[in-house]
Amino acid sequence: MEKLKAGVLGCTGIVGQHFVRMLSDHPYFELSLLAASKESAEKEYSEAVNWVIGGEIPEKAATMPVEDLSRIESSVAKIEVIFSALPSSIAGPVEEMLRAEGKFVFSNASSHRMAPDVPILLAEVNPEHLSLARIQREKYRGFIVTNSNCVVAGLALVLKPLMKFRPKNVVVTTYQSVSGAGLEGLYAMEIMDNLIPYIEKEEEKIIQETRKILGEIANGRISSANLELLPSCCRVPVREGHLESVVVEFEEEIDPQEIKKALQSFTGIPQKMELPSAPERPIVVLENEKRPQPRLDLKGGGKGLKEAMAVTVGRIRKQLNRIALFLLVHNTVRGAAGSSVLNAELALRLGYMD
Amino acid sequence: MEKLKAGVLGCTGIVGQHFVRMLSDHPYFELSLLAASKESAEKEYSEAVNWVIGGEIPEKAATMPVEDLSRIESSVAKIEVIFSALPSSIAGPVEEMLRAEGKFVFSNASSHRMAPDVPILLAEVNPEHLSLARIQREKYRGFIVTNSNCVVAGLALVLKPLMKFRPKNVVVTTYQSVSGAGLEGLYAMEIMDNLIPYIEKEEEKIIQETRKILGEIANGRISSANLELLPSCCRVPVREGHLESVVVEFEEEIDPQEIKKALQSFTGIPQKMELPSAPERPIVVLENEKRPQPRLDLKGGGKGLKEAMAVTVGRIRKQLNRIALFLLVHNTVRGAAGSSVLNAELALRLGYMD
Amino acid sequence: MEKLKAGVLGCTGIVGQHFVRMLSDHPYFELSLLAASKESAEKEYSEAVNWVIGGEIPEKAATMPVEDLSRIESSVAKIEVIFSALPSSIAGPVEEMLRAEGKFVFSNASSHRMAPDVPILLAEVNPEHLSLARIQREKYRGFIVTNSNCVVAGLALVLKPLMKFRPKNVVVTTYQSVSGAGLEGLYAMEIMDNLIPYIEKEEEKIIQETRKILGEIANGRISSANLELLPSCCRVPVREGHLESVVVEFEEEIDPQEIKKALQSFTGIPQKMELPSAPERPIVVLENEKRPQPRLDLKGGGKGLKEAMAVTVGRIRKQLNRIALFLLVHNTVRGAAGSSVLNAELALRLGYMD
Amino acid sequence: MEKLKAGVLGCTGIVGQHFVRMLSDHPYFELSLLAASKESAEKEYSEAVNWVIGGEIPEKAATMPVEDLSRIESSVAKIEVIFSALPSSIAGPVEEMLRAEGKFVFSNASSHRMAPDVPILLAEVNPEHLSLARIQREKYRGFIVTNSNCVVAGLALVLKPLMKFRPKNVVVTTYQSVSGAGLEGLYAMEIMDNLIPYIEKEEEKIIQETRKILGEIANGRISSANLELLPSCCRVPVREGHLESVVVEFEEEIDPQEIKKALQSFTGIPQKMELPSAPERPIVVLENEKRPQPRLDLKGGGKGLKEAMAVTVGRIRKQLNRIALFLLVHNTVRGAAGSSVLNAELALRLGYMD
Repeated sequence: MEKLKAGVLGCTGIVGQHFVRMLSDHPYFELSLLAASKESAEKEYSEAVNWVIGGEIPEKAATMPVEDLSRIESSVAKIEVIFSALPSSIAGPVEEMLRAEGKFVFSNASSHRMAPDVPILLAEVNPEHLSLARIQREKYRGFIVTNSNCVVAGLALVLKPLMKFRPKNVVVTTYQSVSGAGLEGLYAMEIMDNLIPYIEKEEEKIIQETRKILGEIANGRISSANLELLPSCCRVPVREGHLESVVVEFEEEIDPQEIKKALQSFTGIPQKMELPSAPERPIVVLENEKRPQPRLDLKGGGKGLKEAMAVTVGRIRKQLNRIALFLLVHNTVRGAAGSSVLNAELALRLGYMD
Repeated sequence: MEKLKAGVLGCTGIVGQHFVRMLSDHPYFELSLLAASKESAEKEYSEAVNWVIGGEIPEKAATMPVEDLSRIESSVAKIEVIFSALPSSIAGPVEEMLRAEGKFVFSNASSHRMAPDVPILLAEVNPEHLSLARIQREKYRGFIVTNSNCVVAGLALVLKPLMKFRPKNVVVTTYQSVSGAGLEGLYAMEIMDNLIPYIEKEEEKIIQETRKILGEIANGRISSANLELLPSCCRVPVREGHLESVVVEFEEEIDPQEIKKALQSFTGIPQKMELPSAPERPIVVLENEKRPQPRLDLKGGGKGLKEAMAVTVGRIRKQLNRIALFLLVHNTVRGAAGSSVLNAELALRLGYMD
Repeated sequence: MEKLKAGVLGCTGIVGQHFVRMLSDHPYFELSLLAASKESAEKEYSEAVNWVIGGEIPEKAATMPVEDLSRIESSVAKIEVIFSALPSSIAGPVEEMLRAEGKFVFSNASSHRMAPDVPILLAEVNPEHLSLARIQREKYRGFIVTNSNCVVAGLALVLKPLMKFRPKNVVVTTYQSVSGAGLEGLYAMEIMDNLIPYIEKEEEKIIQETRKILGEIANGRISSANLELLPSCCRVPVREGHLESVVVEFEEEIDPQEIKKALQSFTGIPQKMELPSAPERPIVVLENEKRPQPRLDLKGGGKGLKEAMAVTVGRIRKQLNRIALFLLVHNTVRGAAGSSVLNAELALRLGYMD
Repeated sequence: MEKLKAGVLGCTGIVGQHFVRMLSDHPYFELSLLAASKESAEKEYSEAVNWVIGGEIPEKAATMPVEDLSRIESSVAKIEVIFSALPSSIAGPVEEMLRAEGKFVFSNASSHRMAPDVPILLAEVNPEHLSLARIQREKYRGFIVTNSNCVVAGLALVLKPLMKFRPKNVVVTTYQSVSGAGLEGLYAMEIMDNLIPYIEKEEEKIIQETRKILGEIANGRISSANLELLPSCCRVPVREGHLESVVVEFEEEIDPQEIKKALQSFTGIPQKMELPSAPERPIVVLENEKRPQPRLDLKGGGKGLKEAMAVTVGRIRKQLNRIALFLLVHNTVRGAAGSSVLNAELALRLGYMD
């Protein structure tokens, strides 16, 4: 199989760096274009980037030139797949332009997530939503497929296998790391030795995106799931990893062992197809009562990348008809770049890019 | 009025330091005895203590000798009031011995909190529970009055004015600072740049103590409040202050403005009596959506000590018949030493130590 | 004595906040004007400021209006003394304009520090340099007096009593806290769990300013001290306090006990005059070999403000003709606002503002 | 070539974990024994260890049993090479016992470092000191070869290529991470948001060990180098990596470009022999003036392990006849386990274990 040529937009940020690493030696995609804002452009990637995600800059990427985002129209001609780590403030028109030129755009930006014909794809959870890509291709030549907000990536993955027990409502309280806000998202004096119990627009996104992902699709329309969610978001002085305390209320009492079994045994099409970025199990349940912990349970450096796609769950407890648990998601891998790469793998293997 | 002679047991730990500071220039109590474990004994306090709570060691305390806890029986003769910051592992028998000798013991240890004749007193919330002290005096000569667990101090204070709206259940998720575990409670490698979603026995304490504090007393017996609580506790890399995300479900929908008004206007006997350690308002509601934050909203250094007795609340939100909010409690002041000092002030003024 | 009316420029930053606190209840100065950039202007101070320095916003300042820095020319008419916490990028012309209008300007900005007729005043070290203020008044009506860079404040204070032992050279290696860069000086992702061994222009400032402060003045000209300095600066993930490792080489071997005595016994005019912001001893030598530590030895909250003006020294060691020690300076008090307030007190009492 | 059977003592600590990772897939050594204190014994390694060094526990090691250190005498029979990560308090007699049984012991403990017939080996710096191993074999059957203190590993490596310029003295000031003290070396309340300018016995070790490593060997005796060192050690709130500010005074002025060239071009026998754990270059000079930084320049996760053996150097500056620079060493890899593994590779290839 010949590889598809892929480009990364916003290649210098944290999410962009993860895209670069995941695509550097990818069996389906050939990393062929790096683009960023003007300040970074016209340098070699190794010079332009402040590589913070651990491990080495992949050799091939290190010497690639970074192109000026505002002038990629020509260089993008040869590219078939676009991975976008652009800030939402500018992603909208750029991604639409690329879609209009027939590109297959996999985006971490929130700009198009709630558009009716754009799926928020979480490959194990709602692969059927990918059918919207076909509708888009008819309308625009290419398509845009988004990954979800980072908190939602962990939450929707864990809720999916619980849907059969008929949850009524979900209270989710987050411990979100600094990397979730990007390299320049928070000043040190704001967050060192401190907690900030508010993240702009985050709680709205959690409600809307989770409902959309867990929703049903019929006749090219997604009906959001009828699930009540009450999120409370807080930034914590940790570099990487989002921890979430989740309390799900069900119609009736559920044996926590059943919940545990449902979580552990859950797999999706990515596992069946053995997609390159699919973890062996999307949800790993830990028995140790002090887990999951960002320092111990996040993978992501080097060969641990696939493990970083798994969400870890611990402390499953029951109280009447409610189940409580903690989950940990790698916010810049499963919560961002990794999900989009997995989405692209799925789309390719299902024939959406033919 | 002549001051009562007071002693502090466990004077070198964080809670002990707060006791020393609050009692050093107190209008009702005369700091007259400092005791700690053998290693600290027979030094001057300024030598024995690793003063970490900010500000200066109070002048008078600095030169007081620290006595050996295991041999205080003689030196305690002249003392009337005991403030105990002992670890729960040893507090039990020591406090009982002192009670048997007629001392008035105000304790931060959890040892006796759930004893039927010992109140967990939160002075604004359940002053009527203090009547148990009289029953104890009849039985043992002295009495033991405990303050609650640090999370509970914030939670019960905020729940009290909400009880009239008939809460059905409470989901509380905590962000607990390192000082809550004491000076030697956590290794740096465990918690720096990390989160630990488990604190031993903490969730049980939150359920039991909150119910007991909010319970009714009749015929010398407390009936725990019939309130369902689901706590999830997590340690965070912050030195001081416990943040709590609280979701209260009510029988019916409540206007969040009413909730806010109820919180802001709440006062208790300590405010009416203008007790020395009573904050002007026990609950302060902040409008800024990024608050409360440990760095900005905890007081406690120097003259801010009384402010540190207030719990700050922010981000009051409504969803159907649930109300969500964040609260912040100074875990070593209102959550420990400060509550016991306020309890002692209340007990004195109500005549329990006559 | 009638108080002089004082204004604070740049009142919302960390240094500005310290100015506000120190001037709020000052025996010589009446806080009468607060100014900041346009975004903060036309609000009450308590709304405009993100108060991060601990304790409470002083009551009087809380309700003062913040004026727009670019339009203070009229409101400044009634003000006699200006404390400037402006960023160096804009301080230059503003401070000169105010000097031309006859104001007495005490500035934390580096803009004029190296001007030949402007002293960098460290009140205990080079009070005689204040005579330049008189020369300025003749030339410009008012004057500008600067305080030094924050590292230099600690270093020059400690070097002063050592000058009599004839130091040949000084190697100084710094551990500089995040607050030294201001509220928005560093991103969390840059410095959390990290070290940055470079601070722009800092090493040059340390060399030049230390030499100027320790220099002699004759005929209205300062000759910089002939002292070789080799600074190496590093930012560390600590919020407040600069630690410095200092190695001084002397012409010959010195008994470290003599060094210690010289440091401990050092006092200056501020101590003799008992100026309001002068610490009892400008240098405090600690015996404990694990000190000084930012967490234990920085004061500054509430009544500890005067103590925060003292530099703490520990671990005095000798090797051949070199002496090594660690010193700790409160970078935003003695290293910034506090030094300028002390300078103003000295200038007033010596008659420079008559 | 058949692999030698290797055991790791103290396999659960940080250094032990690095040994396990480096030996799990090693071309010369077969990881065949894991031992630790009684509490960890009789569990599988994956249960016994709190794996904190990133990446995954190597598959083979994960299921190996951990043996009780106090009873390894029998199980050690089949083992040829021992890697010791034991605490110095117990390493002494255990390592001597093993040496007496003919084992080749490579130790990170400080117990035998200063023994006259035990080399502190830094494979690129003093390979000739390995000849002491032969002398030991004659005396005791086996031998003990130690790696240096973690600060010394970086310092001696950088000083070696500078020796030809005739350094007179060295002032070294350290920024030492928490992992250097082990998993339980520091309490969170001691070091979070703080600095501790003292590490027990560290400064003495730096002086003695650096001199011994840089010393000459003749007739089986090492004469310590005649180099004056003045170390000042400080613990900083960083998890991993030791940064060192180094000032070297030479007999005369040296062009910093020459220094840089000498550092960059330095290689040793491990590079010539292409030993498995030898980095391509032992010293990497970075041009960016903000480097080296622990977060950006430490490698060690997964495939970055060999890079973690290199010391990074930056900010080379000259002042008269002194050169200043910053160096960064991976304290638990090059500063501990990695150095001992490299030492064992060298010893094997040079025939010391035949």
